[in-house]
Amino acid sequence: MNHKEEHFEGSEMLSDIVIGMSDGLTVPFALAAGVSQAVDSNMVIVAAVVAEIVAGSIAMGLGGYLAGQTEREHYFNELKREYKEVDELPDKEKQEIKDILAEYNISENTQNVLVNELAKDKDKWVQFMMKFELELSEPNINRARKSAMNIGISYIVGGLIPLLPYIFTKTPNDGFMYSVVLTIIALFTFGYFKSKVTGQNKIKGAFKTMAVGLLAAFAAYFIAKLF
Amino acid sequence: MNHKEEHFEGSEMLSDIVIGMSDGLTVPFALAAGVSQAVDSNMVIVAAVVAEIVAGSIAMGLGGYLAGQTEREHYFNELKREYKEVDELPDKEKQEIKDILAEYNISENTQNVLVNELAKDKDKWVQFMMKFELELSEPNINRARKSAMNIGISYIVGGLIPLLPYIFTKTPNDGFMYSVVLTIIALFTFGYFKSKVTGQNKIKGAFKTMAVGLLAAFAAYFIAKLF
Repeated sequence: MNHKEEHFEGSEMLSDIVIGMSDGLTVPFALAAGVSQAVDSNMVIVAAVVAEIVAGSIAMGLGGYLAGQTEREHYFNELKREYKEVDELPDKEKQEIKDILAEYNISENTQNVLVNELAKDKDKWVQFMMKFELELSEPNINRARKSAMNIGISYIVGGLIPLLPYIFTKTPNDGFMYSVVLTIIALFTFGYFKSKVTGQNKIKGAFKTMAVGLLAAFAAYFIAKLF
Repeated sequence: MNHKEEHFEGSEMLSDIVIGMSDGLTVPFALAAGVSQAVDSNMVIVAAVVAEIVAGSIAMGLGGYLAGQTEREHYFNELKREYKEVDELPDKEKQEIKDILAEYNISENTQNVLVNELAKDKDKWVQFMMKFELELSEPNINRARKSAMNIGISYIVGGLIPLLPYIFTKTPNDGFMYSVVLTIIALFTFGYFKSKVTGQNKIKGAFKTMAVGLLAAFAAYFIAKLF
């Protein structure tokens, strides 16, 4: 019954894995499919895909971490601004809360009582404004760091699956065929469990995830064939 | 003064461009740097990078769109659940609202008055729970579609910048050198304007964006050199 709690606890790591692995399975798979049409050495395909996995995991992991830092700075800027407004324009800030409550048909009398109780404690007042007016929660920086790691690692793990067949075969075409088969299975399985975790239709989710991967791979494949 | 409005209006497209272009500048740049160390034909580098740009833009664009759809399904599932709970366990739902208000030192009397006013209109009550208990807003599906397009196109535009030098030079090393120079300038400029738009320190933001791109490129470069 506690769906708020269910929704947040432990699911953050899963959400990171989903983000990293979705892209990790898709982009290196498609890149390998594309490059397999442009070269005749598996070594070059493996070098390209490894380079992409390294770059992609850094871009997603570190990029995500820095985006988290920026979000945190944004939160504290808004917090400072909210404290300033509560000090300088208390009536305007009170009116903003009353406007929010009015949207839910709360009577003017109750609006006034609530706002006056809230205004007794400036910290609580600002917290209320941050959450209910600006809809901002304090970003957790440790979470951002862990999240960056989880996403980066999931990207690498995802990327290794389409890569492996090119390591263990001798020609780009063999690598391509096994990579397609292996990655279709991986995308389908991943899409299935992803949907299970997020409470969506599992089969539909599995097909959707597979479709994105296949579309990306076939687009890359046919475009690289033009070279 | 209306920072809520400032925060949301028009900034969504910019946010999409930032997401797409950050990765578009970084990953194709790093991939090209890596592949330039493993092959001796610019044609192969261009084929690989074009394949990656196609795959990356589809993965980010379409993947993002489908994630938006899933989020929307999640919203409506929770909405249904909230209606059900309001019907079947009204006292529990009322208590949840009272608990939220209690966190802000709202007196029990005011909690009761507000909850009883809210409970008069079931739709408003459920809306209130969605926003203030679950912190969910109804995702806009048109927004998700536009967002997917914006992100995909920004990724392509970003990716063309590191790619162009390999088209207009004759050897991988020449392409690599010009690509590094051009992309450093692009990353710095992009980081600068990104920070300007989000109200962060512009020079710091420019260096951060550049650092992620360079780190990804050098990691890809040195790993590809091993092949």
